[in-house]
Amino acid sequence: MRPLILITNDDGVAAKGVLALEAIAQEFGDVVVMAPEVNNSGQSHSITPSRPLRVRTVKESDELSVYACDGTPVDCVKLAVEYFCPRRPALVLAGINHGSNSSINVLYSGTMGAVVEATVCGFEAIGFSLLNHSVNADFSSCEPFVRTIIADVMENGLPDNVSLNVNIPNLPVGQIKGIRVCHEAKTYWRDSFEKRIDPIGRPYWWLTGKFVCDELQEGSDEWALQNGFVSVVPTHPDFTNYQAIKQLRSRYE
Amino acid sequence: MRPLILITNDDGVAAKGVLALEAIAQEFGDVVVMAPEVNNSGQSHSITPSRPLRVRTVKESDELSVYACDGTPVDCVKLAVEYFCPRRPALVLAGINHGSNSSINVLYSGTMGAVVEATVCGFEAIGFSLLNHSVNADFSSCEPFVRTIIADVMENGLPDNVSLNVNIPNLPVGQIKGIRVCHEAKTYWRDSFEKRIDPIGRPYWWLTGKFVCDELQEGSDEWALQNGFVSVVPTHPDFTNYQAIKQLRSRYE
Repeated sequence: MRPLILITNDDGVAAKGVLALEAIAQEFGDVVVMAPEVNNSGQSHSITPSRPLRVRTVKESDELSVYACDGTPVDCVKLAVEYFCPRRPALVLAGINHGSNSSINVLYSGTMGAVVEATVCGFEAIGFSLLNHSVNADFSSCEPFVRTIIADVMENGLPDNVSLNVNIPNLPVGQIKGIRVCHEAKTYWRDSFEKRIDPIGRPYWWLTGKFVCDELQEGSDEWALQNGFVSVVPTHPDFTNYQAIKQLRSRYE
Repeated sequence: MRPLILITNDDGVAAKGVLALEAIAQEFGDVVVMAPEVNNSGQSHSITPSRPLRVRTVKESDELSVYACDGTPVDCVKLAVEYFCPRRPALVLAGINHGSNSSINVLYSGTMGAVVEATVCGFEAIGFSLLNHSVNADFSSCEPFVRTIIADVMENGLPDNVSLNVNIPNLPVGQIKGIRVCHEAKTYWRDSFEKRIDPIGRPYWWLTGKFVCDELQEGSDEWALQNGFVSVVPTHPDFTNYQAIKQLRSRYE
């Protein structure tokens, strides 16, 4: 029996990026896709405790089943593993995301939320993102890197409790210089909201923002991407700052 | 001029826990509250790119202004800092949450999403949670610990890029043994969804789950809480697993 690969994303089940990932994943095993019905960009690690979820079957076969769910990407992972995968997935993939999930964007990303959730649930998982937000983005330059990394992880596994956050520069494949394993650059978004006035005179605020990168030295994901490399960040579901524990013990214990 | 303290939560602007935190925070400075109109539990670090946000003024004065927003806790922090705080906050607080945000729950928590966002934006920030989900929870046992930790952080600051995730056991104050500075225990939720059939025969799935803790040795937050201590986890907005970088370099570069 071929290995089973579970796929989700945050751009929605019909996005061009997830179709590209489905095609590559089928070279490695049978595929189940459970992805949000609609765009869930920015949904991070959110879950849906307050209402029930529905699932629409798009197609079903031994080789490729596709389901659309009205929950978040994290809901999709949990629900698919428990009710829609015919056997335990050998690998969980998310993406290919339309737009970057590098550096601080990993916090907001529904795609990476799903990857981190898969890790929490004990699966090996990889998130793929292309640095192009367009719904019509061309994912062909991603293919050799997606293929290489999936093949490596299926053969060699990943360190315990670690998933991969893979970002791919928006360049023709011949101009991509290779892969760099990186840490998350220290970045943030400023000028977050634009204030506007609606047609009947009341204010509203719409999320926007400028990306600020304070760290462009070699070793960070933003450096790699700006220099034409695919960035791979080993990512784990632990926010603890271990260095600070000792310092704070002297203050509180 | 007194320091300004910004408060948010994920249980909503009218929750008992945020009212308790407002009362304590006013001992230390002027307070701006910007909290979600409705419950945002489980909203993690999510943001709202797809629609505009509205804000309702609940009350406004130099000492205490309260605003309700129809976005997420992370939206609340970004919007309040940019448009509703009369000056730069000296401190950002979130909570007091109705229910635990210890260990893996930090990933799903809207309260801790807001705290981590405040850190990303360069503010010192603390999230407080009581291990009692009830809307009528009694927050009086939290008060001395909330007061101690706010006073300490306002006097001594926090390590760079670090916020605090504070969880308080649901015990009478006399039975709480003190504070422990901890790392996140390795935990997860299993049996995530319950499948049911609606009145017209169609299936739906509702989020549930059992909390599983594989790690109860001293030093973890779950150990501290189960042994009657307040847990304080120094938390940073970086998912990078630094140990794995070297190992993966030999495979990909």
